[in-house]
Amino acid sequence: MEAAFPPRPAWRGIHAETLMKSFLTLRSVDEVLGMIREFPVLPSESVPLSEALGRYLASDIHAACDVPGFDRSTVDGYAVRARDVFGAQESSPALLECVGDCPMGQAPRAVLHEGQTARILTGGMLPEGADAVVMVEYSRPVSDTMVEIIRSQAPGDHVLMHDDDAAQGKLVLARGCRLRPQEIGLLAALGEGQVACCRKPRVVILSTGDEVVAMETRPAPGQVRDINSHTLRALCQNEGACVVQSCLVPDDKERLAEHVRQGLEQADVVLLSGGSSAGMRDFTVEIFQSMPQSELLVHGVSLSPGKPFILARSNTTCLMGLPGHVSGALICARVFVAALLRRLQAAGETIEAQVQARLTRPIASAQGRRDYIRVRLLRQGQSWLAEPITGPSGLISGLVQADALVICPENSEGLYAGSEVTAFLLN
Amino acid sequence: MEAAFPPRPAWRGIHAETLMKSFLTLRSVDEVLGMIREFPVLPSESVPLSEALGRYLASDIHAACDVPGFDRSTVDGYAVRARDVFGAQESSPALLECVGDCPMGQAPRAVLHEGQTARILTGGMLPEGADAVVMVEYSRPVSDTMVEIIRSQAPGDHVLMHDDDAAQGKLVLARGCRLRPQEIGLLAALGEGQVACCRKPRVVILSTGDEVVAMETRPAPGQVRDINSHTLRALCQNEGACVVQSCLVPDDKERLAEHVRQGLEQADVVLLSGGSSAGMRDFTVEIFQSMPQSELLVHGVSLSPGKPFILARSNTTCLMGLPGHVSGALICARVFVAALLRRLQAAGETIEAQVQARLTRPIASAQGRRDYIRVRLLRQGQSWLAEPITGPSGLISGLVQADALVICPENSEGLYAGSEVTAFLLN
Repeated sequence: MEAAFPPRPAWRGIHAETLMKSFLTLRSVDEVLGMIREFPVLPSESVPLSEALGRYLASDIHAACDVPGFDRSTVDGYAVRARDVFGAQESSPALLECVGDCPMGQAPRAVLHEGQTARILTGGMLPEGADAVVMVEYSRPVSDTMVEIIRSQAPGDHVLMHDDDAAQGKLVLARGCRLRPQEIGLLAALGEGQVACCRKPRVVILSTGDEVVAMETRPAPGQVRDINSHTLRALCQNEGACVVQSCLVPDDKERLAEHVRQGLEQADVVLLSGGSSAGMRDFTVEIFQSMPQSELLVHGVSLSPGKPFILARSNTTCLMGLPGHVSGALICARVFVAALLRRLQAAGETIEAQVQARLTRPIASAQGRRDYIRVRLLRQGQSWLAEPITGPSGLISGLVQADALVICPENSEGLYAGSEVTAFLLN
Repeated sequence: MEAAFPPRPAWRGIHAETLMKSFLTLRSVDEVLGMIREFPVLPSESVPLSEALGRYLASDIHAACDVPGFDRSTVDGYAVRARDVFGAQESSPALLECVGDCPMGQAPRAVLHEGQTARILTGGMLPEGADAVVMVEYSRPVSDTMVEIIRSQAPGDHVLMHDDDAAQGKLVLARGCRLRPQEIGLLAALGEGQVACCRKPRVVILSTGDEVVAMETRPAPGQVRDINSHTLRALCQNEGACVVQSCLVPDDKERLAEHVRQGLEQADVVLLSGGSSAGMRDFTVEIFQSMPQSELLVHGVSLSPGKPFILARSNTTCLMGLPGHVSGALICARVFVAALLRRLQAAGETIEAQVQARLTRPIASAQGRRDYIRVRLLRQGQSWLAEPITGPSGLISGLVQADALVICPENSEGLYAGSEVTAFLLN
C-alpha cells in the first residue's frame, strides 16, 4: 500500500512514511499509564474542610486526639460495673444502688463503687468505675435509690470506648485518600478544619480544526461546532481539575505553537485535540518537540479508539495530543487524562464504578490492541446485559447512548456473545 | 419488657409506649421511597452549558439542526460515486478523473459526474454526487488529473451522514437525563449554550444534641464534635444540592422549632439530625407536626442502621429526621436524602456504581428488615471479596473503612459466607 497524494503543503503529512512511522512506535496502554505515573505530584495547599469533598489528601493524617474522647453509652439505661451484674437474670436480679444521673455533655460527678449504678442516656459519658451499660428494658426500679438489673453484661457491653473511632497519634487517613462524606466527618471529629490537599491541576484545552467553529456560531456548509473542548472540559472538571483556558485555535502551526507556549505558562497540563485534517498529528508532535526542555514520550498507542494519542512533556508540564474524532478524544481522555489528573493529585488506587454484565453480541478486536467498547446496559431480572454500540468514533451520539465501556484486552481477538464482562460505568 | 425511668422532663420520652409505637408504625424502605417520589419536582432554570455538568435536564431536547449537518468523510482519500468503483481491485482498477480538492470547512465547488472523483480529507464535506470515500491507500495517481482506484466501495462507505449524530426535530436527550461529558458535547454540537435544568434543591441542615459541640471547639469531657452536619452537607453536595445553612442547634424544643420554621422559608428540604438523647425522636415528630400545612408521613423504617428515620412535609417542603448515630445518619441519608434530591431534580433512573463480590463472612439479619452492611472490598485475582465491617453505627470509622454497602433484603435472615453479592460503592 502506498500513499497517493503528492506531498504539497495543502496535503501535508500524508506520506506512507508517516503512516508507517506511527505503527512502528505504538505503545501499550499500560506502558503509557506507567509513564503518566512518572509525572511529579503537585504541591499541597491548605483547603477548608467545607471545600475538601472529592479532594485527595497530600499527607497522612494522624489523630490529634482520641475520638469519641471518652467512654460513651450506646443505649439508654444504667451504667454498671459488669462484675456487679454477672449472672443476673429475671429470676435472680442484681440489686444495685442508683447514685444519680450521668448528664449529657458533661463528665458525671458520680463514681461507681461495688454495688452501685447510675442512669445514663445514649451518648452519655460513663462514670468512673463503670465498664458496661444495661439497657433500660432490663432494669426494674425498686425504690427511688434502688434498681434491679435482670441481665448479665460483659465489660464493654453497650459502650463505645474513648478511642474506638480514632486513637490519638494513630494513622487514620493515608496520603492519597479521596475525601468522601465519611472522611469529611472523621476530619470534623478530629477538629481538622483545614486539610492539606494536592493543588488542583490547572488545565489548558486547545481544540483545533479548520472545519470547527465555536458553539455560538451557526456553522456554514462544511463546518461543525466544536465538541471536544466542551467534553474535555467536563471530563477535567469531573476529575477535580481547574480548566484555566479552553479555546478553539485555527489549524495553523505557528498560532498553535504560540497557544501551547502560553499554556505552559499557566497550566500543569496542556491538551491539544487535533482537527481531523491529516497532518495535524505530525504538527502536534513538532509543536510539542519545539517547546523548552521537551521530550516526546509517546506517539501512538495500541488502543481503539484513540490510537493517535501523543504524550510529551516540557519540563514537568504534561502535553497531550488527543484525536480529533469526538468519541476517540473522550475515551482516550478518560483513559489517559483522568489517570494523569489523579496522579498529579497523588490519588491512591480507586475502585472504578462497574457492573458485571453479559454481552448480547460478539465483539471483534485485534490481537495486541486494547479496545474500549461502548455498551448500553439493560436489566435482565437481577443481572445486566451489555449491548455493544456500533458506529464510527467520529460521532458523539454513540457515547451519549452508552452507559459503560467494556474492555477487550490486548491478548484477545474479540469476545463471544454471552461472555461475562466488566462494564465500567461512564459517569 | 417495661421502661424503668419515671417520665420526668430530664428523661423525657423513655416510655414503653414510645418504644412500642415506633415498632407499630415501621414502614418498608420501598414504601418510603415511594412517598419520596410524590414530592413535586423543582421548577427549571436556564443554566449555561459550561455549568451544566452533572445537572439533570428539566425538559426533552429535540435537535435544532442536523449534526454533523453535512455528509462527511471519515478518512483521507477520494470522494467517489460508489457505482463508478464497483468491482475495482488491484488487478482491474477503476480509472477516474480527479476534478479537484474538497477544502476543509467549506462546501466543495466540485460536482461529481460519472467517472469523476475529488480529493477529500477526514472531516471534509462530500461534493455533490459523491456517496462514498475510498481510502488514500487504495488509490494510485496516474497523472495530475487521473487516478486509479483499486478497491470497490458500497454507498456510505467512510461517510458520516449529515444526520448521523442528530436529526433535526428528533428527540436526542430526554427530561431527567444526567449531563455527563458526552451529553455536554452533544448539546454543544447542537448550539445549546443554555440548558433548562431543574433548580438545585436548597437544603438546611440542623444538627443537635446537648453533648455535641462545633468542630472549632475543643470538646470538654463528655462532649463530642459535630460530625453529622459535615457528612450530610458533603452528601448533599455530591447530589448536586445547595446547602444554604448547616448549623448546630441546642437540644431545646422551642429553639429547634424556630430553626425548622426558618429553614422552611429558605429551603426545599430541612434535615434534622437528632442528638443521641432519648427524647429527640418524639421532639422531632412534634416539631415537624407543628409546622404549617404539615403531614407526618413516616415515623420509623424497617432498615438498619437508620430505623428512627422520620419523614414529614410542610406544604411541599420536605422535612426529614435522621438518627443521631453518625453511621446511621449517613447511610439513612444515602438511601433517602439522595433519593429525594434526585427526585426534586427530576432525575431519571441511574445505574448505581457497584461491584460483584463474594462475602468473606456470614451476615446475620432480621426477617422483615433491610440491612445495609458496610464492606471493605478486596481484590482476589479477577474478582472481589466483600469483607463485612462490624462495629456500632455510632462510629464514623466503620464507614471510613468501607468501600461499599451490601444489602441484606427484607425476605432474608442473613447471607452465608461465600454468597455472591452486589456491593454498592460509597463514593
